[in-house]
Parts: sequence; structure tokens; C-alpha cells
Amino acid sequence: MQKPYVIGVDIGGQSTQLGVADARGNIVVQTSFDSSNITRLEDYLQAFTNNLNNLIDNPAVGGKNNVKGIGIGAPNGNYYQGTIEAAPNLRWTHDATGAPQVVYLKKTVEEAMGLPVVVTNDANAAAQGEMIYGAAKGMKNFIEITLGTGVGSGIVIDGKVVYGHDGFAGELGHTTSIRRTGRQCNCGKIGCLETYASAIGLARTAREMLEMYPEKPSLLRNMTADDITSKDVALAAAQGDELSVEVFAFTGRLLGEAFADFVAFSAPEAIVLFGGLAQAGNLIFEPTVRAMEDNLLSIWKDKVKVIPSQLPGSEAAILGAAALAWEL
Amino acid sequence: MQKPYVIGVDIGGQSTQLGVADARGNIVVQTSFDSSNITRLEDYLQAFTNNLNNLIDNPAVGGKNNVKGIGIGAPNGNYYQGTIEAAPNLRWTHDATGAPQVVYLKKTVEEAMGLPVVVTNDANAAAQGEMIYGAAKGMKNFIEITLGTGVGSGIVIDGKVVYGHDGFAGELGHTTSIRRTGRQCNCGKIGCLETYASAIGLARTAREMLEMYPEKPSLLRNMTADDITSKDVALAAAQGDELSVEVFAFTGRLLGEAFADFVAFSAPEAIVLFGGLAQAGNLIFEPTVRAMEDNLLSIWKDKVKVIPSQLPGSEAAILGAAALAWEL
Repeated sequence: MQKPYVIGVDIGGQSTQLGVADARGNIVVQTSFDSSNITRLEDYLQAFTNNLNNLIDNPAVGGKNNVKGIGIGAPNGNYYQGTIEAAPNLRWTHDATGAPQVVYLKKTVEEAMGLPVVVTNDANAAAQGEMIYGAAKGMKNFIEITLGTGVGSGIVIDGKVVYGHDGFAGELGHTTSIRRTGRQCNCGKIGCLETYASAIGLARTAREMLEMYPEKPSLLRNMTADDITSKDVALAAAQGDELSVEVFAFTGRLLGEAFADFVAFSAPEAIVLFGGLAQAGNLIFEPTVRAMEDNLLSIWKDKVKVIPSQLPGSEAAILGAAALAWEL
Repeated sequence: MQKPYVIGVDIGGQSTQLGVADARGNIVVQTSFDSSNITRLEDYLQAFTNNLNNLIDNPAVGGKNNVKGIGIGAPNGNYYQGTIEAAPNLRWTHDATGAPQVVYLKKTVEEAMGLPVVVTNDANAAAQGEMIYGAAKGMKNFIEITLGTGVGSGIVIDGKVVYGHDGFAGELGHTTSIRRTGRQCNCGKIGCLETYASAIGLARTAREMLEMYPEKPSLLRNMTADDITSKDVALAAAQGDELSVEVFAFTGRLLGEAFADFVAFSAPEAIVLFGGLAQAGNLIFEPTVRAMEDNLLSIWKDKVKVIPSQLPGSEAAILGAAALAWEL
């Protein structure tokens, strides 16, 4: 008999979220622990397995025999290796001297828990979650774009997340399709999509426009420029602030131009937008779709959907990671 | 028992090439017919099936029972539909009034021959051929780039050619990653990779450079500008003609920049270059690899091979199409 539950774990810079999900995407029990002050790997793994054990022993779950496996979404998570390669925001992925170390998460957790484990990055986990539980249910070919602090992507072809030769496929936030000059990215490259279409990129565009058009009134001028976040821009735009609407139009245009190139690659049925910026609705969708359509080959015009994620906000990351475990 | 042969068919604007291949890539018998003057679909199909029957009845093949299936590579070939959608260079894909018609090639040939048929475009066929018989033998993740009159691509992920939601995936020649301004493409878009990295694009770059640097000596100045082909540029470059070398350097730079974005998509083990320009050796490989490396995320630097096709020139198209039939 198919085991009824999977466990999803989302490892973030501040905390680790863990939950047990059923096949319909209900989270039957969840927990989390603060990892922001954990510096040693063994301390992190101890907290990790303690929390897993608590979940599994919860009466609603009923023990290990009811759990098919554990899916983990983590920054720099590698599907083939089952590792996290040293992530800047995770202190416990560095040794005492601060030198980066590779964490063999899959192996360690499998040995500790006696359950199969799969590891990947958060965008790939979101794509898997979208396919099993969300807006891409029933789709075999789509691209999930996560618009958060950065821009990530998970590409699904023939019903499977693409991992590539090395397990790192799908770094569309670091394509420079849209600009080869312009903003410096944290990755070292110039003009990456992420420097424009992330929450941070959008706030930066707002600051640039405020400076570029000093005569233009804007609600954002009531704030200290450095404090402006993408949320502030969205709120102002929702109130009809022209400059803020223009910031979204510019961001959407670059995003849509990039999408046209992505479509030429894998001819997806849909592109699903996940994360903060995606919640801005038509402010971001309308200019994105228009720019994409303007740049598509004729065979794809009016055929590729651009739709919002349907993974429930606060549980999306857990569900995404959990979805990975059904493939085990 | 595994049937020992497959048939590969390459449909081109001037002629149709047909051959019977074994599992090791030997072509045991081949033929072709001139289709440049065929205007009616039924005439084309008649010639097509006649030639197929001749091949199959050849003593070296020994009849239909020894043939596993037929692979067809054709312009605008659609894998899922098994069709050729009206192709500009194929008059018989248009009706008597010149209106485009969809040709149900798979269905028609299957009924006529009693053998399974698979249809796709030539770049996808080349990718499949490369995987079974050529430079990508044993690889599960690579991208085949065809540098011919146009620029085509076949993307292999997890050992399978990517067809996408609609069967048209892999139009990387029409990504505009490298330029969003610049040359008008036949497809209607501006700045497509194909307008720079095809044989025609390269010859155009040569003409532009001759005009842009009138003081610069070049062997190409002995020719009428309009007659210059990519081959002329390659020959001149091979003789050390500086301007011609610079034409290749420019072309390679744009190609390599585009490749960096392709790598971010599917993290391939290799990019295989197929077709005329690929035969220019280091003239094109060296600047391409340098530009790609300059634009790769650090996780991929020095890890992705860029290699020439190993499908034998004159038989490459037949072998590519034939390779498709092993999957049947």
C-alpha cells in the first residue's frame, strides 16, 4: 500500500520549516526551528533530526511506517549529490574558520532517520510542488519562476524537474538575455535577470526612477529612498501612483522579454510565477505578458499561459519540498 | 530479436535523401531524389514511397521485416503531430493556389509502408543522431547547435530530445539573448541569434566590417561584396586575413554569450556544434568558448565542453533521422 505521508523541509537563512503532507496537499502537522544562531553543523543536524522525530512521532502521523520519504529544499541544494554546497546565508555550512564546506545532507539524514531523502534547491522544489499540488497540476511542461529576494527557476519537461548534467540546471535568474550591460549581480555577472526582476531589483528600479525624474510626483517620495521595498512600490502602485506603476511596467517588460527566450528553449504550456512580486497581480502580469507576446515566435503567440502559483503562501515551501518525496 | 536496420530520411529544399542504417551507424544503402520541381503533394509522396520501397527491397536490407522504423527530419517537422507544417522551401507543402497546407507525413507514410514513422525537425534529428552515433554518445544532457543557413538546436535532457508542450521546443536560433536591437530576422523578430551566427549572418558581418573599416586591407576585397559567403570568409581567415579572423571572433563572441544562457537553462555536459560554420575549427571554437566562459556562473566555469559534431558530413542528416527510429 502507498504510504500516506511525505515530509517537506524548507531550509532558509533564518529558520527551518518542516511539515508532513498528504497526497492532496494538506499539511497534517508542521513545526519549525530558529537556525539563525546555529554555527556548527552538528548542532544544526541535531536540531534537524530532533524536529523530524517529533513530527514523525506525532499521533496524526503515526510513525515512520506511514512516511514515504523526506524532501528538502535548500539554497544550493544539489539533487544528484544530495548535498548543500556552502550557502552564504547558512553559517553552519561553513567550518569554524568560516571556510565553506559541503554538507552531505541526504546521506546524513537517511542514516539518522532510516527514510529516503531527496535534496534540491527551493525553486526546483516549488516547481515540483506546483506540479503535484498547485497551478501546474496535470501539466507536463512548464517553467516555475520564483520572484523573491532573488529570481530562481524550476523547469519541468515531460513531467520531470530538469536537473541537468550536474544537478544545477535552471538558473534562469542568472541569464542575461535582457541586458548585457547594466547592473552588477551578486554572482559576479553583469545584467542578470535577477538584478531587475527580484524584489530587490524592483526596489532599485524605483529608486533609480525617483532620481531620474525628479519633477515627477510620487507617494514614494514620502519615504527615505534607501528604505523603499518592493512592497512599498506595490502599495503605492495599487493606489494609482504613476511612477510606481511605471516601475512594474519596466520590470514586467524585462521579465517578459526573458520569458520569450525561455519559451524558445522548452516550449512550455505555462510559466508559473511564484513569490512576492507575483502577488502584485496585473501590475506585473500585464506588462510581462505583453512583452513576452511581442517577442515570441509566431508559432507560440497567444499559446503560452503566464499564471500565478496556487501553492498556499505560508505553506508553499514545505509543500514544494514535500512533493519531491512522492518521486522517491 | 531486435530488427537490425532503421531508415533515415532527410527532407531538404532541393532533394530528399534516404538511407538504411545499422545500429553502429553504417549506412548499408542509400538513395535520393530531386524534389525541387515537385509541386503537388501526391507527386511528392509517390516519389517518396517509391524510393522507400526500393531501399527496403534492396538485397542488403532484405525486406520490411528487417526494418524497425522510419525517422524523418524535415523543416517544420512536428514530433507530436507527425506533420510538416507548410515550409517556405517545400512547394509541395502548399496547395495549387500557393496556400500553405499541413502534411500528415507520419500517418500517410505509415499507411503506405506498414512501418512505424517518426517525424521531427532537422536539428532535433541531428541531436538524436549525435547521441546514438556521434560526439554525444553516452551523454544524457547536451545541446546540439546546427550552424547552417539558419541556426537550429536540439536539446537533450535525461537522454531524450526535448519536444516541449507542442512539439516545437528548441528554437534557440530565435532567442535574442545576444542583441535586442540589430538585425531583422526572417521570423519577424529583431536580433535573433540566427541573424548573426548562421552562415548568412556571418557573411553579412563580413560585408558590414568591410564597409565599416574601409582602410583595412582584406582578401575579401577582391570579391564583389554581395557574393561573399561564409566559406569565403573561412578560407580568407585560414590564410591569416585579419578582417576575416575578426569576423569569426565577433560571431563566436555572440554565440558564446548565448551559450552561457543556454547552460543556465539545462546545465548540459556539452554543446555540440554541427554544420558548415562548425568546420571552421578554432576560428569559431576559440572565441565562442572564451565568451561562454566569461559569461558562465562560477559553478559551470571550465565544466561545459564545446565540441564539434562527429556525424560524418555527407551522411549526417540521414544518420540523424535514422537515429530517431531506434526509439520507436
